[in-house]
Amino acid sequence: MPEIRKDPVLNRWIILASERQQRPNDFIAASKKINANVCPFCPGNEKMTPPELFSIPGANGSWKIRIVPNKYPALEGDLPLNPEINGSCERMNGSGRHEVLIETSDHNGTLEKLPPGHLSEIIMAYAARAKEMLKLPFIKYVMIFKNQGKNAGASLAHPHSQLIGIPLPPQRILEEIKGCKAYKEKHGECLFCLLAKEEAALKKRTIAENARFIAIMPYASRFAFETRILPKWHAPKFESINDDEAMDLADIMQKSLSKLSHSIPDLCYNMMIHSSPKEDESGIYHWHMEIMPKLTQVAGFEWGTGFYINTLSPERAAEILNAGEIFRL
Amino acid sequence: MPEIRKDPVLNRWIILASERQQRPNDFIAASKKINANVCPFCPGNEKMTPPELFSIPGANGSWKIRIVPNKYPALEGDLPLNPEINGSCERMNGSGRHEVLIETSDHNGTLEKLPPGHLSEIIMAYAARAKEMLKLPFIKYVMIFKNQGKNAGASLAHPHSQLIGIPLPPQRILEEIKGCKAYKEKHGECLFCLLAKEEAALKKRTIAENARFIAIMPYASRFAFETRILPKWHAPKFESINDDEAMDLADIMQKSLSKLSHSIPDLCYNMMIHSSPKEDESGIYHWHMEIMPKLTQVAGFEWGTGFYINTLSPERAAEILNAGEIFRL
Repeated sequence: MPEIRKDPVLNRWIILASERQQRPNDFIAASKKINANVCPFCPGNEKMTPPELFSIPGANGSWKIRIVPNKYPALEGDLPLNPEINGSCERMNGSGRHEVLIETSDHNGTLEKLPPGHLSEIIMAYAARAKEMLKLPFIKYVMIFKNQGKNAGASLAHPHSQLIGIPLPPQRILEEIKGCKAYKEKHGECLFCLLAKEEAALKKRTIAENARFIAIMPYASRFAFETRILPKWHAPKFESINDDEAMDLADIMQKSLSKLSHSIPDLCYNMMIHSSPKEDESGIYHWHMEIMPKLTQVAGFEWGTGFYINTLSPERAAEILNAGEIFRL
Repeated sequence: MPEIRKDPVLNRWIILASERQQRPNDFIAASKKINANVCPFCPGNEKMTPPELFSIPGANGSWKIRIVPNKYPALEGDLPLNPEINGSCERMNGSGRHEVLIETSDHNGTLEKLPPGHLSEIIMAYAARAKEMLKLPFIKYVMIFKNQGKNAGASLAHPHSQLIGIPLPPQRILEEIKGCKAYKEKHGECLFCLLAKEEAALKKRTIAENARFIAIMPYASRFAFETRILPKWHAPKFESINDDEAMDLADIMQKSLSKLSHSIPDLCYNMMIHSSPKEDESGIYHWHMEIMPKLTQVAGFEWGTGFYINTLSPERAAEILNAGEIFRL
């Protein structure tokens, strides 16, 4: 049973999930856990996953998208949180949900090569599962993310995303909301709405744009090729997305990921959706997607200070992507 | 010339240092930048580094510890910061200092195998250089850190640490000080003093202890084998360390790193010293050292939420280290 522990200095929570250490890994060659011939996410191996929660049928009787509980969950079950304090130590039960969305039956597929309609079905499935999880009273937030490739922390190669339902709103999101609130109080408008307008006018850091979205490399990027996809209209909650909006999001994801994977050989990346927590009805936040290519390691200076050192400006990164240059470290 | 940019959402600063992209790398095999035969930090190649700032003589006319400016600095120079605001974009000049401390003339050495007297001289050299940098009025903090091994973000294999003098106090340290202040106001004592006492009594998460220091795996560890070395007496600023204290710190670092490198094959780690910023004379903070072995990748969930998922409890990690077991992922 996972547990949640609090760091008394930073008031930051960590999840302790010892069972996850047993999960298989396609990328640890020396490990006994590797078994490239048997992928639990490939068609025909459906019995290797916990029972399916949801699927979208594909051609010839198979499925095209499939959602299953994570066999090695970071959080699970419905136990009351039961917070306990013992001296400086504070803990609670690790209740929550952890699901895997298998994006395609093709073991070697990538998001950017899927037909746009298929990608928009994935996006609508994210939203449907998030809404479903948020019906549980104790789930306060659903983090939707994807780890692509070994350097991004993936353990299985078959294309998949993950959804984790958390019993607390995440600190990182609360900090962003705080920033948005402070900005709105001072300047009277939404900071992300302004950013979308500024970048669309400037064009120096834009890598893709369509009617509803803009993909930019943020002015204060922490990492080379860090990408932010912003809705151009103000929308606090991702899960409210409709079919038309999902089509446009699929389009801009495809354009952005195609440029990134063309310019960065063996692209590994993390994708995350940032959205308002369930109980925040203020409408202040502006949901968005982050794509973080992993080219370097976070090192001591970053861990120690919270400052990041980036050696590639977002302006130059956008130029490389837009010109189709190949980037090598 | 490096520049410092502000993330308008999180009020987090990043450093843009494009020249650092040219630095050599021992670990990128495919890169033209690798040249294993010519290490700029080995004796005989002193001319490959910028002019020496400080050194401690070793046997037969050579040096044993050597400090030089970083040839590819993250921050450099003395220009006024000149903050500029343009819409949502805020920047300032990247003035500061970036030095490299070459820990030994032995290319294949490790901190834990150095004679204890040598390691305590490194520690005293950290303190001396930090004090020197802090004399510059615009330097507000000196981050002392070490990246050991490719997975920890090192670019050169020869054992070395780094010191970066920053013109702003780091956000991460300010957050820790905020936590300490809140704790002191509520409970009347220093949280780190309490942690040192609690862990010394409990012994479940302790991996080494001597008269002045205790090395523990924190209760809310983010990563497997995360290690914190705490002074047992209240001391806000690392750079005030004296020779006797440095001998004890060398002793506990050696014990901790020996256990970690025994149990974790091909150990890569980040080491960071957390200390009070120059202008904080409140005495609230308690300096300490963090050692973070790098076994896994930070992935989408962590980046998105600020929550960390750890699959090895600190209690089990301490048990593994204290029993001398070998740990494999």
